[in-house]
Amino acid sequence: MFLHNKRLQYTVRVAEPNPGLANLLLEQFGGAQGELAAASRYFTQALAEDDPGRKDLLMDIATEELSHLEVIGSIIVMLNKGAKGRIAEGVEEEGELYRSLNGAGNDSHITSLLYGAGSPLTNSAGVPWTAAYIDTIGEPTADMRSNIAAEARAKIVYERLMNVTDDPGVKEALGFLMTREIAHQLSFEKALHAIQPNFPQGKLPGMPEFSHVYFNMSQGTEDKRGPWNEGDAWEFVENPLPAVDGGDGLASVQLSAEDEARLDQMKARTLSDPLSDPVTGADLGASKQP
Amino acid sequence: MFLHNKRLQYTVRVAEPNPGLANLLLEQFGGAQGELAAASRYFTQALAEDDPGRKDLLMDIATEELSHLEVIGSIIVMLNKGAKGRIAEGVEEEGELYRSLNGAGNDSHITSLLYGAGSPLTNSAGVPWTAAYIDTIGEPTADMRSNIAAEARAKIVYERLMNVTDDPGVKEALGFLMTREIAHQLSFEKALHAIQPNFPQGKLPGMPEFSHVYFNMSQGTEDKRGPWNEGDAWEFVENPLPAVDGGDGLASVQLSAEDEARLDQMKARTLSDPLSDPVTGADLGASKQP
Amino acid sequence: MFLHNKRLQYTVRVAEPNPGLANLLLEQFGGAQGELAAASRYFTQALAEDDPGRKDLLMDIATEELSHLEVIGSIIVMLNKGAKGRIAEGVEEEGELYRSLNGAGNDSHITSLLYGAGSPLTNSAGVPWTAAYIDTIGEPTADMRSNIAAEARAKIVYERLMNVTDDPGVKEALGFLMTREIAHQLSFEKALHAIQPNFPQGKLPGMPEFSHVYFNMSQGTEDKRGPWNEGDAWEFVENPLPAVDGGDGLASVQLSAEDEARLDQMKARTLSDPLSDPVTGADLGASKQP
Amino acid sequence: MFLHNKRLQYTVRVAEPNPGLANLLLEQFGGAQGELAAASRYFTQALAEDDPGRKDLLMDIATEELSHLEVIGSIIVMLNKGAKGRIAEGVEEEGELYRSLNGAGNDSHITSLLYGAGSPLTNSAGVPWTAAYIDTIGEPTADMRSNIAAEARAKIVYERLMNVTDDPGVKEALGFLMTREIAHQLSFEKALHAIQPNFPQGKLPGMPEFSHVYFNMSQGTEDKRGPWNEGDAWEFVENPLPAVDGGDGLASVQLSAEDEARLDQMKARTLSDPLSDPVTGADLGASKQP
Amino acid sequence: MFLHNKRLQYTVRVAEPNPGLANLLLEQFGGAQGELAAASRYFTQALAEDDPGRKDLLMDIATEELSHLEVIGSIIVMLNKGAKGRIAEGVEEEGELYRSLNGAGNDSHITSLLYGAGSPLTNSAGVPWTAAYIDTIGEPTADMRSNIAAEARAKIVYERLMNVTDDPGVKEALGFLMTREIAHQLSFEKALHAIQPNFPQGKLPGMPEFSHVYFNMSQGTEDKRGPWNEGDAWEFVENPLPAVDGGDGLASVQLSAEDEARLDQMKARTLSDPLSDPVTGADLGASKQP
Amino acid sequence: MFLHNKRLQYTVRVAEPNPGLANLLLEQFGGAQGELAAASRYFTQALAEDDPGRKDLLMDIATEELSHLEVIGSIIVMLNKGAKGRIAEGVEEEGELYRSLNGAGNDSHITSLLYGAGSPLTNSAGVPWTAAYIDTIGEPTADMRSNIAAEARAKIVYERLMNVTDDPGVKEALGFLMTREIAHQLSFEKALHAIQPNFPQGKLPGMPEFSHVYFNMSQGTEDKRGPWNEGDAWEFVENPLPAVDGGDGLASVQLSAEDEARLDQMKARTLSDPLSDPVTGADLGASKQP
Repeated sequence: MFLHNKRLQYTVRVAEPNPGLANLLLEQFGGAQGELAAASRYFTQALAEDDPGRKDLLMDIATEELSHLEVIGSIIVMLNKGAKGRIAEGVEEEGELYRSLNGAGNDSHITSLLYGAGSPLTNSAGVPWTAAYIDTIGEPTADMRSNIAAEARAKIVYERLMNVTDDPGVKEALGFLMTREIAHQLSFEKALHAIQPNFPQGKLPGMPEFSHVYFNMSQGTEDKRGPWNEGDAWEFVENPLPAVDGGDGLASVQLSAEDEARLDQMKARTLSDPLSDPVTGADLGASKQP
Repeated sequence: MFLHNKRLQYTVRVAEPNPGLANLLLEQFGGAQGELAAASRYFTQALAEDDPGRKDLLMDIATEELSHLEVIGSIIVMLNKGAKGRIAEGVEEEGELYRSLNGAGNDSHITSLLYGAGSPLTNSAGVPWTAAYIDTIGEPTADMRSNIAAEARAKIVYERLMNVTDDPGVKEALGFLMTREIAHQLSFEKALHAIQPNFPQGKLPGMPEFSHVYFNMSQGTEDKRGPWNEGDAWEFVENPLPAVDGGDGLASVQLSAEDEARLDQMKARTLSDPLSDPVTGADLGASKQP
Repeated sequence: MFLHNKRLQYTVRVAEPNPGLANLLLEQFGGAQGELAAASRYFTQALAEDDPGRKDLLMDIATEELSHLEVIGSIIVMLNKGAKGRIAEGVEEEGELYRSLNGAGNDSHITSLLYGAGSPLTNSAGVPWTAAYIDTIGEPTADMRSNIAAEARAKIVYERLMNVTDDPGVKEALGFLMTREIAHQLSFEKALHAIQPNFPQGKLPGMPEFSHVYFNMSQGTEDKRGPWNEGDAWEFVENPLPAVDGGDGLASVQLSAEDEARLDQMKARTLSDPLSDPVTGADLGASKQP
Repeated sequence: MFLHNKRLQYTVRVAEPNPGLANLLLEQFGGAQGELAAASRYFTQALAEDDPGRKDLLMDIATEELSHLEVIGSIIVMLNKGAKGRIAEGVEEEGELYRSLNGAGNDSHITSLLYGAGSPLTNSAGVPWTAAYIDTIGEPTADMRSNIAAEARAKIVYERLMNVTDDPGVKEALGFLMTREIAHQLSFEKALHAIQPNFPQGKLPGMPEFSHVYFNMSQGTEDKRGPWNEGDAWEFVENPLPAVDGGDGLASVQLSAEDEARLDQMKARTLSDPLSDPVTGADLGASKQP
Repeated sequence: MFLHNKRLQYTVRVAEPNPGLANLLLEQFGGAQGELAAASRYFTQALAEDDPGRKDLLMDIATEELSHLEVIGSIIVMLNKGAKGRIAEGVEEEGELYRSLNGAGNDSHITSLLYGAGSPLTNSAGVPWTAAYIDTIGEPTADMRSNIAAEARAKIVYERLMNVTDDPGVKEALGFLMTREIAHQLSFEKALHAIQPNFPQGKLPGMPEFSHVYFNMSQGTEDKRGPWNEGDAWEFVENPLPAVDGGDGLASVQLSAEDEARLDQMKARTLSDPLSDPVTGADLGASKQP
Repeated sequence: MFLHNKRLQYTVRVAEPNPGLANLLLEQFGGAQGELAAASRYFTQALAEDDPGRKDLLMDIATEELSHLEVIGSIIVMLNKGAKGRIAEGVEEEGELYRSLNGAGNDSHITSLLYGAGSPLTNSAGVPWTAAYIDTIGEPTADMRSNIAAEARAKIVYERLMNVTDDPGVKEALGFLMTREIAHQLSFEKALHAIQPNFPQGKLPGMPEFSHVYFNMSQGTEDKRGPWNEGDAWEFVENPLPAVDGGDGLASVQLSAEDEARLDQMKARTLSDPLSDPVTGADLGASKQP
């Protein structure tokens, strides 16, 4: 069960309203790498987890990410607070609101303001949050890797947002949130490697003849090599060929006579006559061109 | 520039049509962990990459994933081949098609069949593929971690799909595709660690006082400990409190007098009167209930 | 700040695994009327709310809805628990898993199982949750009405789900969750009517000549009347006409000469010649038809 | 059956082109609270409605909302008319078009212009309209409440749009559309309360011991009280506890021995060793850090 | 302005309820090729069209498609009518509803039923309708081609749906709707070719050296030829090479010294060391494997 | 199988960075008419195609479109190259980055930059690419028409993008890509008409009494006529009436007595009392209004 304390995990002191900055910060509220994505990711994993240690870890961090969602959302609301009054109450002189909102261009943040100058669950381009952002697969050796990567991405977005603001209160709170991603990433790394073995994920080992092969699919200029395709561990295939299984490289299926007959009927009906030279709609349309 | 060879990277031999299995395999064609997601992920990273080694690596694997997309799509098309003829040509006796398609339930795969029994870019529930599945952030130390995780997830989905089919040709081709994910994951691991340092990602180091703290946000039953929150590296906070920054834990912003006045006007207009005891619509609606 | 207690708000006792039922219950986990939608709705409203009473109310209920999300998710996970082991570990005899999963049809819940038999943030058809479900507008007299309606809908979905299960533990927990929606709806009704006046929402009163008119746009059989268009309050327009403003009912804009000239150029270029009688692609394609 | 009159319900006189304003108005064309959402909402409810009075009401208003969609779309098209010619015909001097379109920033409305300067079914941020906006549930006591709320929200968006334009013709037409939402809201209110009883919605009454309880989930600073949680009707729980059912607050399911065995196998395979102290990828990546 | 007649354009006589068939028919209600897509497509084109003939044509057909939306929706509602009562009223014996709904599998149509057994704006897999289905571009020589193709696709989906039902009333109504798509396609063909020239679309003619070239990008087995790449009109390039412009086939940009310096800084920071041979997370995870 | 050559099909020479232009070009990378849509469209059709000629044609063009995706993506990456360094490395003086990025407004392209200044799979408004853009139906006489239309639309978007840039290298590369759409359109036209007959698509001929009727659904001002509704081929219905089948224009279904009874129960429960005159929430809320 969740409980809530009306005080934030980190105090928010915003120097002055700035709807444009509010809009950028939406990335970490309702964006792909944002705190709702993080909280949802760990919370749903926690529900299904059978290992008591990981279950507790996941719920601890999910709960903290919810608290971060509240911090980032509170910053956004503060940055929009001035616009909120103007939008809700209008202004005496017609058009003043329009001028004040549109002074810096008719930007995507206006959409957010039209929705009441709160903190909507969209990214900075106005795209609604979607659970398609969450990549949980229900196998901890894969999910822990997904969590490590998610924390790494979130850390970077916070860093970029810190670089676009001068507001010291905003910068400091973002710095706290960014730092916590670093800590979470470390926890997930430890949790991944506390499972042994954890690679390859799952139970099936794969075909040994293909698990350490590197196919050089992109050619035409000098190929660059490195530990990812070089050394004793790797078989490097300079010129990859089709049909590595030794077959003919074609796809086939065994059909019943009835199915075969119906397909033949369809093929005959939609046969492409290679000898035709039709007058086409494009020819017709172009016929008056010089 | 891409070129195409009409032979597949791996030969596809399907024993008999099976639209239900085709539908499940759509997960790896147009699903979140599927081959289009993989190819798109690495291709877009390759375009923006400035390091020649990683650029070549990413384009090699992107091209191979496109070839895998072709293999999995070819399996799906073969499994649907019988249904394709029946749907396109109809049948003499009215209703036979309906009965043959609906014998095993009126399932989501029927939707796919309505679209022509090909290989649509949806997942196994019929949800269209979306680029929201791709989590590239443009910082290689984060993106390589995302790629490692993506390969881990794809490996697991292939394993699960192998477990639900008896068709030896399908199983073997899936086994090849699964194995290649293992190889790719290894390459991305090597490429990540060939960047030093790679943690924390980006340039900003974070606040040292919060980067090794673990907040025990989930309580109420026994807490489980492990290397993710235990040991010299960690400061474990048994009972996390709000306002870890030492402030009051509240959010504030400095408004101009004009903005303050408009907000006050709005607050007065929408004031919630705590002493009111209104008759509400629910009271009205419930008025005749016993 | 949020805190979590590892005990659920309501104990979950599931009689036996049932992945099909788990799939239906996803409606209230990651569906349009589900608990994530509810929690997100009230949480984002709470962040932006300036009235202390409503802010507290919204955060109280948001936190409870998160706790409900945990209860419904826990039921789903328990119902999927048997399938989880079978999917993760596979089975000795090839095909057994396939038969056990597909015995009741190859349904949409298989997609959910492919994702690890947890509790994904999708609805019962597998559609990922989207913030497009949330209709907050930032004006409390509108938002409270939206919340009342949302609780009403959620109550109904719980009722329907209770009707499709015999499992007493599931039924009882669903009954608790349904009942809480009733209580929340009452709270939001009271909060709406504690704002006076609350209709029409916002500040602009509208044109009095059109605010109590009813246009009978659908005709052709007997018109039904009732308090929604009958009585002293209403002006009933039997045969609505265009241009109720007394104009010509057309749309126009004043263009500069330069813009006018460019439009004329475009119109000339794409002129539709009413006197032409072209041979079209369709004619060509049909030319060999009997 | 629908019929169309080429004259609009309300005459549209636009003073001059303004693509930025056109873009904002898209909110009420292809946005969440817009006229397509309204028309679709009432039209689909009308189709399924069994009560003749409500069916007629819903179809009347659905048809009027379609007519409003035409009005708002016509305004948008007029505001874009100048840009349309410039985009379709290009300009002699290279770059003039670029400068004219980008003078006020490279905004989201450019996307709309790229699509031909018409009236696309997107919101003002360019997000395509989705039926996820529609919350119909097929129970009239819930749907009428949803309709009331939808009209309230649409009224507010029109009010905000009126505040950002000086164009008298646009302002007047928006005022008409806003006023009609007020009238529709009244009709739906009357239709809701013409059903008795209408609360709680549906048939199941809920558990009496939980239907008038208020859980004070958010604490930490002073709690605000009001008619929504105060008074004889309410039981106020100051410190909510888990497991209000009197159980242990845990989730459980009865598994077959076979399922239990497979789960145990999975748990053993993915066991998290609390005593391990692994060197992790993050440790490796950070190894050269000062 | 739209008006509505309560009689359908085509009478609907359904023999008996069939929720599974209702679900399939959703393709033409809220699916990609369905009537909402058709009506929206032509209606939005009509609003922006400057040619009086095409504008009238588009609005005529848009209005008819709305009337078709009503017909197909009415069929769906009738097919769901039996389920509607059972869902709304529940049943005496617990579980009977579950058994009656789940007899043929726990299918995607159950989701639709959970929403009240009406006619939701989803496709047959439950995916909400999206304006992403509409491809209008605002140039009539392109849009008419899009409309022709849309009618062709809709005709096919109706044909497939007719093949899966025995219900004579449903079949006849579907036959009417299918036939109207044929008529609309003819009208759009005539309207396209009444614009001369109509190919290539727009104003810019393209580079003559590339407009009639065919690149044989897919090789490896015998190439098939036909009028699409054979004959005097075509230059067939047997072995396509990169850099057809005669350049080096690489991408470059001229950067300022300051930008160059920052990029160099980034490259140095994220340099991939080709000589490293790191121990990676995968190595760690695999260390206990046999 | 696909192979890749590291040289582009067309050399890219960008004069200087321009993130705003990069953002517009995203339309042809991750937008509805862009190269990913084109490549995906033809590739999936090729997989399912049974006619060898069309299969080869589709794979040739799919492969070329992938090569175009690489060209357009490379232009975007070059245009963003300056911003990439600034974003990744930050700047010494706080706020400089903010000012440099926000000089021209806080636009949607900032979102793209936040994601690392690469080439994300979104359109120019930041909406993620979705397979809902692809309209393949699996019947070649329909799909070829869809392909013709898709090429026509893509040609237009390229033309519009050429009109908004002065950069000669970008303009030339866009000109090449635009020209290739013209060539592809011609090929698809030829391939369509090489199937005889190709109209109407599919097998069912439609009802002859409705296939050449034109319903004049939009009236009220002068009707425009042309070859699309005039001439010997057409029956023009001046005043269309409902129930063209001669029935009563109503929808009905035969229900079992049990289903009828349950529906009656529901109707009684939700009966709308036409004689009621309820006090509603709106009345209450408006009670203090003057």
